[in-house]
Amino acid sequence: MNKEALVELIRRKQSFLCVGLDTDPDKLPEHLGKDAEAVYLFNRSIIESTLPYAVSYKLNIAFYEAMGTAGWDVLKRTIDLIPKGEALIIADAKRGDIGNTAARYGKAFFETFDCDAITVNPYMGEDSITPFLEYADKWTIVLGLTSNKGAQDVELLELKDGRFVFEAVIERVAQLGSPENLMFVVGATQTDYLRRVRNLIPDHFLLVPGVGAQGGKLKDLKPLMNEDVGLLVNSSRKIIYASSKGDFAERAADEAAAMQAQMQEMLA
Amino acid sequence: MNKEALVELIRRKQSFLCVGLDTDPDKLPEHLGKDAEAVYLFNRSIIESTLPYAVSYKLNIAFYEAMGTAGWDVLKRTIDLIPKGEALIIADAKRGDIGNTAARYGKAFFETFDCDAITVNPYMGEDSITPFLEYADKWTIVLGLTSNKGAQDVELLELKDGRFVFEAVIERVAQLGSPENLMFVVGATQTDYLRRVRNLIPDHFLLVPGVGAQGGKLKDLKPLMNEDVGLLVNSSRKIIYASSKGDFAERAADEAAAMQAQMQEMLA
Repeated sequence: MNKEALVELIRRKQSFLCVGLDTDPDKLPEHLGKDAEAVYLFNRSIIESTLPYAVSYKLNIAFYEAMGTAGWDVLKRTIDLIPKGEALIIADAKRGDIGNTAARYGKAFFETFDCDAITVNPYMGEDSITPFLEYADKWTIVLGLTSNKGAQDVELLELKDGRFVFEAVIERVAQLGSPENLMFVVGATQTDYLRRVRNLIPDHFLLVPGVGAQGGKLKDLKPLMNEDVGLLVNSSRKIIYASSKGDFAERAADEAAAMQAQMQEMLA
Repeated sequence: MNKEALVELIRRKQSFLCVGLDTDPDKLPEHLGKDAEAVYLFNRSIIESTLPYAVSYKLNIAFYEAMGTAGWDVLKRTIDLIPKGEALIIADAKRGDIGNTAARYGKAFFETFDCDAITVNPYMGEDSITPFLEYADKWTIVLGLTSNKGAQDVELLELKDGRFVFEAVIERVAQLGSPENLMFVVGATQTDYLRRVRNLIPDHFLLVPGVGAQGGKLKDLKPLMNEDVGLLVNSSRKIIYASSKGDFAERAADEAAAMQAQMQEMLA
């Protein structure tokens, strides 16, 4: 999915909501069970009920890997459920390796699983990013500044030249691609720094987790929007675990619809 | 495998060689074919022929992921081929995510696949490392300073306090665990910095790629050895692709034996 198609999708659905499928077998409604098939059935219901309100689904790959071979089968079948062009499919894999190995990860997620985007860790620099950029109409979403406590250990270290590490990362990575194939992850709770990020990369899409369960507020993100919207806001637990009963899909739809309504206002 | 067992294994085999199973279906000897089963058969022969000379196998997870579900099956079956206690099994996954997600990666590689060690990317800081450290007798191998060109983009940036980013990373991560459960990846070609790394962490094992095909020299690593040996040196392509013919396993054994002989001298 290229940028034009993504922006068109956002305008059509009046939403920039990404639903995170961090599906934990231990958190499923009891009637579904706890096995890999239960995860598939849960995902299917969540996708069906939230698709009118979401422009993206982010699959947290760790949750599927933890189930072993069966998990990879569920991952593939879940991705195949999402109608092509109706949502940007993000493999939240945070892969970070170089050259030939990065190319293999690209093959895994862009070809074998046919995702539209993959999240990538920039620690190893240029050659851990560029292999992903070779795929046309696919997106490389690079970690910039995350919202976890450990962000201070590396991302928020101050460089000799006055920049923070995350700023140097974003500036360097932005040179490798364009707003047509690169996005950056920026945590919604990093309010002190969101503006600095937007100034560095005025034209790129930002993937913003941390709204909802993690405490970030949607309306605070309004200043980050650009003429192509420029934002995808992820919510996982607040939507997919809105209810632990038989009405989980309806309640997920309610939560997604509420976020979509707020986004529609922001888009006006 | 705990540290005592690892050091005992190294003394017994007189080797600190790690063989990298970066098995590429396109590089297999023609008679094996190019499918997932061919990868399994190739791995089986390589493990059988190199086990007397190797104390570790490092499985480059990207190569298995790229084959989809079949790849995960081959990964599992390959790991099951390695006799427990005869080699440290490293999942070269370079995972980097936080909290609950990191815990899922831990479950995937330490439980589902029963590896002894996983490589981890430190960009997100503390909470991307600690979940892996909760497993007893398992190893978390954190990227320190890698040997690729892109190392200069992040790892070799200079901080305000005079340290390089990789030094700050190593010092911070070392506080989270101990030489009993933490190792660091340091590229053999980073000769200017190897000594600095060793001074920061005199007691930890270092996992050193980049000897052989990438140009690093084994004997240059001698000053990095400590009283527990403290080194695992990885070689992938030079060993596993020593021949592209029917004698690939014998030639791999020859290469591994040659490295083991050099290591025996260094251990004397």
